[in-house]
Amino acid sequence: MANLIVDIGNTFTKILVFSGNQIVFSDRKETFSISELESTVEKFRINQVIISSVRSDADFGGLRHISNAVVIQFNNNTPVPISNLYETPETLGVDRLAGVIGAKEIFPDKAVLAIDFGSCITFDFIDEKGVYYGGSISPGLKMRFKAMHHFTGKLPEVDDAKSTKDFSATFGKNTKESLQAGVVNGILFEIEGYIKKYNEISGDLKVILCGGDSSFFDSRLKNSIFAHQILVEPNLVPIGLNTVVKYQYDQTN
Amino acid sequence: MANLIVDIGNTFTKILVFSGNQIVFSDRKETFSISELESTVEKFRINQVIISSVRSDADFGGLRHISNAVVIQFNNNTPVPISNLYETPETLGVDRLAGVIGAKEIFPDKAVLAIDFGSCITFDFIDEKGVYYGGSISPGLKMRFKAMHHFTGKLPEVDDAKSTKDFSATFGKNTKESLQAGVVNGILFEIEGYIKKYNEISGDLKVILCGGDSSFFDSRLKNSIFAHQILVEPNLVPIGLNTVVKYQYDQTN
Repeated sequence: MANLIVDIGNTFTKILVFSGNQIVFSDRKETFSISELESTVEKFRINQVIISSVRSDADFGGLRHISNAVVIQFNNNTPVPISNLYETPETLGVDRLAGVIGAKEIFPDKAVLAIDFGSCITFDFIDEKGVYYGGSISPGLKMRFKAMHHFTGKLPEVDDAKSTKDFSATFGKNTKESLQAGVVNGILFEIEGYIKKYNEISGDLKVILCGGDSSFFDSRLKNSIFAHQILVEPNLVPIGLNTVVKYQYDQTN
Repeated sequence: MANLIVDIGNTFTKILVFSGNQIVFSDRKETFSISELESTVEKFRINQVIISSVRSDADFGGLRHISNAVVIQFNNNTPVPISNLYETPETLGVDRLAGVIGAKEIFPDKAVLAIDFGSCITFDFIDEKGVYYGGSISPGLKMRFKAMHHFTGKLPEVDDAKSTKDFSATFGKNTKESLQAGVVNGILFEIEGYIKKYNEISGDLKVILCGGDSSFFDSRLKNSIFAHQILVEPNLVPIGLNTVVKYQYDQTN
């Protein structure tokens, strides 16, 4: 069984072809046309397509078939193999939902904290029984730099977080370094704080990082006492979407 | 000896009269006129005035005397009783500098972390010998809420952090709560992270909170393992400015 995942983010769209649990093809660009999706479906003999979009102007809203493949529009009414206790599922970002489903697929018997580094950073926890309660949303790396410039009109905008030194001593010795220290350490302390909190809830917690800045922060958490709990999985959301397709297939066949 | 402190912030100006180390009068509003300062100087028989402004359009830049009192314009060339190793002192906010001077005045023999909750949150460390190296600047409480709304165009703007529940379990169960959890927990984890780091540098660290949100966060740190190290001092910056006046007086008399 081959599935095509179309994951429409704020900036980029990713497409991935799964054969079972294996990713056999992936591509990423700003947008894909229907004919590009059609040729992918035909080339890989795709049975099912799932489309998930965090944009309100989702292009593919009306599609029911691409070539001969069935199209699932992923939203908060789609049947999923986890128990979603979020009070307002209609306002839950589909990427957050797909992320915890992916987390459960990767670690079926563990409690997992999924941390997704996008424009905002989302922290979502799913327990060892597959129950999702909710989480936290916090400003992302670039947003913090932009906000301090934009909302003060005085502080410079720093855009090269990557030149951030290892602030093991946490001293920014000039304004640029102070901003870098504030943003990067702030996020690192936040990640460690959540891991510590959720460790208190669940003794055998796993942590999965995904999204644009996950490698950046993973490399800076190498010396953390929590490093052994952390996995980087850039395809966490697509894995969750593929899980939804498999679940729907199992339910109807 | 009575001193008048004029502390011009981004939104409000504070004036305080110190008799020695005692605050005998304070007032706060958007701005004060010269004649208001004059009548305060005369009423309290003020000898010296110090004016500190984080605004670039400081109103009182040219003043050398108010009535008979000497006026000190506090800037990065003003002689101070600490050793400032910041690499670019000309870009160091005068409030950050006054804050660590105040911290040293309150705990002369201790290493102190000064945390100032303004539009941004500044974390500044001064060691037990009075040496200041630098620190970190991070987005403040309101700025985080505003940024997530402004820069995503999708998330709502939350403006009542005060209704934030005690997220001991750190689950936001709907979008508003997720944003509140992300902002409030994020800052709490950040504060605890810095205290932990600086505790490793200095065994007997004191922490002083000042600025608009200091009581809000202090009350949420009551159960922290670091609570016993924390003091709230709303007048940290004015105390630092009064220390500068006393130091200048001692140097010249």
